[in-house]
Amino acid sequence: MVMHEKWMKRALELAENGRGWTSPNPEVGAVLVKDGQIVGEGFHHLFGAPHAEIEAIRNAGENVAGSTLYVSLEPCCYFGKTPPCVETIIRSGIHEVVVATIDPNPKVNGEGIRALRNSGISVTVGILGGQAKESNRGFFSMIQKNRPWVTLKLGLTADGFIADVTGKSRWITSKPSRVYVKEQRLKYDAIMVGMGTVFKDDPSLLPENRTGYIPYRVILDDVLNMPFRMKLVSDEYKQRTVLVVSTGEKEEKIKQMKALGVHVIRTERNELGWIDLNAALEALAGFGINSIFCEGGGQVAGSLVSERLIDELQVFIAPKILGTGIMAFSGLMKSLDEAIQLKWNEPVKMGEDIFIKGTLV
Amino acid sequence: MVMHEKWMKRALELAENGRGWTSPNPEVGAVLVKDGQIVGEGFHHLFGAPHAEIEAIRNAGENVAGSTLYVSLEPCCYFGKTPPCVETIIRSGIHEVVVATIDPNPKVNGEGIRALRNSGISVTVGILGGQAKESNRGFFSMIQKNRPWVTLKLGLTADGFIADVTGKSRWITSKPSRVYVKEQRLKYDAIMVGMGTVFKDDPSLLPENRTGYIPYRVILDDVLNMPFRMKLVSDEYKQRTVLVVSTGEKEEKIKQMKALGVHVIRTERNELGWIDLNAALEALAGFGINSIFCEGGGQVAGSLVSERLIDELQVFIAPKILGTGIMAFSGLMKSLDEAIQLKWNEPVKMGEDIFIKGTLV
Repeated sequence: MVMHEKWMKRALELAENGRGWTSPNPEVGAVLVKDGQIVGEGFHHLFGAPHAEIEAIRNAGENVAGSTLYVSLEPCCYFGKTPPCVETIIRSGIHEVVVATIDPNPKVNGEGIRALRNSGISVTVGILGGQAKESNRGFFSMIQKNRPWVTLKLGLTADGFIADVTGKSRWITSKPSRVYVKEQRLKYDAIMVGMGTVFKDDPSLLPENRTGYIPYRVILDDVLNMPFRMKLVSDEYKQRTVLVVSTGEKEEKIKQMKALGVHVIRTERNELGWIDLNAALEALAGFGINSIFCEGGGQVAGSLVSERLIDELQVFIAPKILGTGIMAFSGLMKSLDEAIQLKWNEPVKMGEDIFIKGTLV
Repeated sequence: MVMHEKWMKRALELAENGRGWTSPNPEVGAVLVKDGQIVGEGFHHLFGAPHAEIEAIRNAGENVAGSTLYVSLEPCCYFGKTPPCVETIIRSGIHEVVVATIDPNPKVNGEGIRALRNSGISVTVGILGGQAKESNRGFFSMIQKNRPWVTLKLGLTADGFIADVTGKSRWITSKPSRVYVKEQRLKYDAIMVGMGTVFKDDPSLLPENRTGYIPYRVILDDVLNMPFRMKLVSDEYKQRTVLVVSTGEKEEKIKQMKALGVHVIRTERNELGWIDLNAALEALAGFGINSIFCEGGGQVAGSLVSERLIDELQVFIAPKILGTGIMAFSGLMKSLDEAIQLKWNEPVKMGEDIFIKGTLV
């Protein structure tokens, strides 16, 4: 069991190399082990490219026969962009397969494992399964909830404000928290903010390391107020920007944005006249976006929580008191009996701040 | 050293028995040890009663000669309500004294230790000193800051509100947090709230266990709005209630309150027309109140933090979102650059809530 976990850990590490690139596919890593030695490794590099198992088998060459395959997600058993992995595994002479977690895709969902077992291969399932699900939570969300995973980040004062009365929010939280937030951007398919944040901060929403994968930058801009001078539509990554609008007008501006390489999505409005977030998330899924990291501000946060479209809440509580300021969830007013209920994880210190993860219950 | 800590721990445990009763004196415990055995124990029971050392010496009887005294605070060297302990210790034949912390009282402040050493007694200082200071932090505050120690408790939603828009706050926090708050009441000389809390909740502010010491219940009631029907001025503990008023009127009502056994303090007003909290704390110190546990609401919290009269902040963050509600610090409006700065301790889960202690910096 300890050895199983050791090799699966390596498979999960390999999987991470594909993070972002593989969406809407899951990230997957695979390791082939023979006589206690790694004889082959692979990961899913890019949507449409060979699967991790196939990479590992190729990498192992002649050593594949008699080896054990560790793979972070159940091998597929259907023709998609590539032929089914299960067939290749059976033909390769692999004698044992260890799987972290079942592929929830209805086209697989245990059928891959069944096919392997039917061919006489010994299969173990569930080694580091929680970690494997966590790393593919966007993919799981798409299959289970039919929408991208949404993490909402909040940087709050001790008394719950996201900015002072003048709107200033740079910086409420301490540097280690801000670095952690930037590091996380690479773990999502898209970073999302509202126009309030764009006007206030002119953010670029890029990861710290820009040499590899760059997540989409999604801006909820209901009436297409985005000025052309903003970084998000003028920097060298503008083809990674998606504006979500709900106006029926501004045809000309939409054309101009598209001419710049900026993506524009038009969605319905909700009964309050703002962007219908369910429709917006559905449209974003069409871009291959499985997971979204929402960084604010108040209107976006208020709408997301009203629609219960938050899978994880990340709250950074700074050691600061303002008394009055901009509230975290705009447009929301619940009585105590009808409050939105959360569940907190264990809190930690991060820099000078307190960091708490939570989920809606 | 390990043995020193073991016996000092016992002295600190004994000291706790006097908590509340000894104010404005410190709580003190003492243990006499001879040949690895406890031969005498004592604690300061009540303001004006014999000191812990004297109790322990009496308790040890003939065994005192040649023993080691463990005492949680430096023995006194002056005539106060009782004769100086140092003289009794020297006469008793105790050959060694271990002290947790120096008595900061200018009349002692190391002189007790010096007198013991001058008489040939070996003295060790600083065993569990931090814990000893913590347990007497009200006494230390009176000497070092010339005002009672103030702990402010806040029960907040995740978005920083102390109540919903209708004013309802029962219950924001979970039961374990509320039990912890009630348990803490016994550790303070007084519990303090404003009239908003009284009107809303009609609280009794009593500890869970009412068989022993009952802390004062202090109500900041600037224009003496307190109705006679409220528990605080009508229950069997009303002689432990102190109303702090800043009005020059309502002589008759003040007389009636006093006739009931309720204490009334009149203090100055500040420039905003509300109670001058510095003056109020000074007057409360006159009641022998060394430490105050403030349980709300927004106006009291806002005034305390404005005046920087908070020594410890206890924040309970409930897993609930309201969107809008009653803000924690009324009357305060700081820009981000001028925010009141705190320092957080390590956070913990408490029941369903997050519990964080902090201090003003």
